[in-house]
Order: sequence, then structure tokens, then C-alpha cells
Amino acid sequence: MPDFPFIIVRELDALRAQVAGWRGSGHKIGFVPTMGALHEGHLSLVDLAGEKADKVIVSIFVNPAQFAPHEDFDDYPRTEQSDFEKLSLRAVDAVYVPHGDAMYPPNFSTAVSVGGVTEGLESATRPHFFGGVATVVAKLLNQVQPDLAIFGEKDYQQLLTIRRMVRDLDMPIEIVGGATGREADGLAMSSRNAYLTADQRETAGELNKIMRHAIDTIEAGETPARALDKAKTALLAAGFNAVQYLELRDAETLEPVKANTKSGRLLAAVGIGDLRLIDNMPVLLP
Amino acid sequence: MPDFPFIIVRELDALRAQVAGWRGSGHKIGFVPTMGALHEGHLSLVDLAGEKADKVIVSIFVNPAQFAPHEDFDDYPRTEQSDFEKLSLRAVDAVYVPHGDAMYPPNFSTAVSVGGVTEGLESATRPHFFGGVATVVAKLLNQVQPDLAIFGEKDYQQLLTIRRMVRDLDMPIEIVGGATGREADGLAMSSRNAYLTADQRETAGELNKIMRHAIDTIEAGETPARALDKAKTALLAAGFNAVQYLELRDAETLEPVKANTKSGRLLAAVGIGDLRLIDNMPVLLP
Repeated sequence: MPDFPFIIVRELDALRAQVAGWRGSGHKIGFVPTMGALHEGHLSLVDLAGEKADKVIVSIFVNPAQFAPHEDFDDYPRTEQSDFEKLSLRAVDAVYVPHGDAMYPPNFSTAVSVGGVTEGLESATRPHFFGGVATVVAKLLNQVQPDLAIFGEKDYQQLLTIRRMVRDLDMPIEIVGGATGREADGLAMSSRNAYLTADQRETAGELNKIMRHAIDTIEAGETPARALDKAKTALLAAGFNAVQYLELRDAETLEPVKANTKSGRLLAAVGIGDLRLIDNMPVLLP
Repeated sequence: MPDFPFIIVRELDALRAQVAGWRGSGHKIGFVPTMGALHEGHLSLVDLAGEKADKVIVSIFVNPAQFAPHEDFDDYPRTEQSDFEKLSLRAVDAVYVPHGDAMYPPNFSTAVSVGGVTEGLESATRPHFFGGVATVVAKLLNQVQPDLAIFGEKDYQQLLTIRRMVRDLDMPIEIVGGATGREADGLAMSSRNAYLTADQRETAGELNKIMRHAIDTIEAGETPARALDKAKTALLAAGFNAVQYLELRDAETLEPVKANTKSGRLLAAVGIGDLRLIDNMPVLLP
């Protein structure tokens, strides 16, 4: 195995000893949990952690509990060596790669569930997703005990779910949202983009543009209902085979926007081939 | 307000600052969460914390989330000054009395649930109890961040639930069980014992004796089924109006005992007047 400019930790005891040592030296610890298959989107979160903390820990763990039986857990890309190589070009101090058996030992039977912000959107098609996410993130945060943890705005509902969990359970950790990494044509970076054919990839680039246009018209005074109707038509015309959701929500609570909502978020999930793309963007409301 | 030989902390920020100071000085922190209405049973847990840690924090919080609507949340005894006085005679460094509004802020929507050990027994009559307990204990542990926390064996299923949660969520805290405090006649101490009439109090003292006798006969070779049948008959004859459960379980998993179970636990809940008493004791299996 080549040498990397960070330590690779696979056991919880070793992780805790390392973190305790750093903390004892007065270092602020930043944490970026990932499922591997790293792309520039993840690496920008790693960079953000480096700006805000003295020591950066990245975890790589493909969490079985957040995949439904029909989803792509077995096929989810696992590219450990290439992930290590990408991380070696950034300021990373430790990469934590826990064993699945250690994460979910025999008789594992605890679940963390979050209501409110988890309702609708992703939950409509993935009802167990946020339960699996909240539980594994609670575990990872308790294992690493960072001062701050970075989650991408790409998974906006997930970011708000984690924020709510951390607040409600009084976990002494700051949750920081990192901006969505985008390709040259604006497509939100995603590990699953690797599965797009050339044609699909071209269509995929339209999602963010159609969303951007809908937001511009809403901010210019169009009613959200009309703007979103037109955007759905445009998405289907562009070649997406389904619009699972395209909704304007309150950016903090994810509730439907009300007359006094100041800060909105447009969130979308669309189908393309057998794949599913998600994206979201801020909306300034009058 | 009289001076007490400990600090009284009502705000989370102040608690965290105090704990950080102690930890920075190398002190080991022990924590005893309570719902107040303190009796010698609680105080023995406080003493145990003092044996195992350098600084002892006791919390007093009557948790609404673990009472069902028909249960006695409003009537649960609240005796803050008398609790402080009792604690002032023990080695206590801080008493944490959080505000209910701070524990459950607006839009609170996170729950911790534990399976396995929570099945049956107390859950049969109190289906939401352990969800409420697990969630508030997760919060309190994250607030206090002790090195160890003490829970009474009196609430044995609760102790195992907390142990399971802490293990499953990788909370870096040792959970220590404290022996059940007992009155002279062996009655397990409980805040609710104060509600017993004189006659009921005499009957209540029979529960532990009948359980002890059943355990002696099981350890002497009687089949559990026969021993427990006889004990149930004896409980009703003694004046209890119901035996909600009287069960021999695996002491670690709370599963029904199997041929290879070494360590058992006899757990009981009985009705007396409008009240409910619980108790439990270890059973050595052949």
C-alpha cells in the first residue's frame, strides 16, 4: 500500500486515541463523513473543513441502513484506493474507514428518527432513508467527536435532518453546510453521475438551468405554482422521464412556504434512464 | 435560598463550561440522572458515582416524554428544595436542573428508539415509555458528557435499554448499574412508595419475599414455570390486585431464558390499589 500523507484508521479505539491526542493539544477537529466514491464536490467539503478546523478527519463508510432492499447498496461504487489518492492532494489528517461489523454489531437495535424536516421530498420515494442516515450519522459523530462536521447542501434535506437531530439531541457539534459542487454546465456533482450515458449526461445538465430559470421568474414576481408548472413541462421536454418532485419549501423548516417565509429553497428530484438526480437552490422570497 | 455545598446549574451553557473546566483539570465526571423526589435509593447511586468519579453531577428533570397522557406526570412529586437538602449531605459537585422549554424547544422532532431489550415487560403496559426514556437520556448524556453515568438496577429494563443505546450509538460513556435500595423489609425504594397506605405498605413488603422464595426454589431445581405459577398465586393471596408480569428472562438480553442461559433475572410488576410496584432480582441458572 502506498504511503499517504494522513493516517488511515479502521478501529474505533485508535480513532478515539488519535482525536483525544489532538484535542489535548488544543486542536479543533473538523469531520467530513462520506460514502466514498469521492469527487470534487466532496473534496470542496474537505477544503471547507480545513478552513474551519485544525485537524480534518474524513470517514468513508457505505451505510447499508440507508439503502432499501431494491436500491443500489451492492453496486454503490467502492473505490478506496482512488479515494485515498484524491484525499492525499488535500489537507487531510486522518481517514476513518470503519468495518461494517463494528458499526452494526449483533443485536444492534437502536434507531434515531427525525420528524418534521424529513417529511415528503426524498422520503416520498425513500421512506427509510433518513432514519438510516440519522442513525449512522449519530454513531459517526459520537465516534469521532469533532468540533464541527460538514455536510453538503447537495443533500439539502439530509443537511437539515442532521442539523435538527444535533440540536434536538444536544450533540455538542457545529453542523456546517458546504456549497454544492457543480460541473462546468452546472450539473450538481454526484457519485452516481458516473453511470450517465453521454446522451443522459447532456440532458442532466438541463436540470439546474431549468431550476435557475424558475427561480429567476419567481424572484421577478411570478407565482410559484405557475413557475413550477412551466419548469416541470420543460424538464420532461428536455428528456427527463419523470419529475418526482419540484417543490418550493421554507429553507429552514422545509415546510411549504407561507406568506411570511423569507428564505425559500427549490428542491427537485428527476428520473433519467434508471437513475435519479437531485438538486436544490436558494430562492429569495419577497 | 440557602447555600448548598454544590453549584446549581439551570442553563446548558453554564453546565458545559463547568464540565469543560473540570475535564480540563483532569477530573473524571460521574453523572446520576434523576426525576427528583429523591430517596435513599437515589442517594446510594450518588455515593456510587462518588466512588467512581472525581466530580459528581446529579440532574433533576421530570421528563414529560416518558409519561403517557393517563399517567401521573402532573402529580409526580416535585420537591426541589428537599432534594437539594438531601444531596447536600452527599458528595455532590453540581446539580443540573434544566428547564422543560430548553429540553424540548419548538419543532423538537427527534426520537431515539431501542428495540430488543425494550420488548414486553414494562412496554406491555407503557408502550411509549422507553422511547421517552432513551430520547431524554441521550439528550442528558450529550449535555453533561460524563465519563460514566449511573442507573439503578431497580429499573432493570431501563438500565439495559440505556446500555444498549449507548453501545449502539457509540456514546463514549460507561453505564454503571447501581444496586436497588431496599427498606428494612426488603421493599424496593421508589418515589411512588410515598403514596402507599399503611395496609398497602405492609402488603408491598411481600413482593420481594415472594420473588426471593421463587428464586430459591428455581435455583434448587424447580422448573421456572411451576415456581412462577406458585409465586403468582402467593402474590394475589398477599393482597396485590394484579400480577402484570412475573417473568424469568436472560439477564443480559432480556430474552426468554434458553437451555444455555447462565445468568437470569426475575422481573415483576404488580398492582396494589391504584399503584404499581416493580422489582427484579438476579437468578443463577444451572
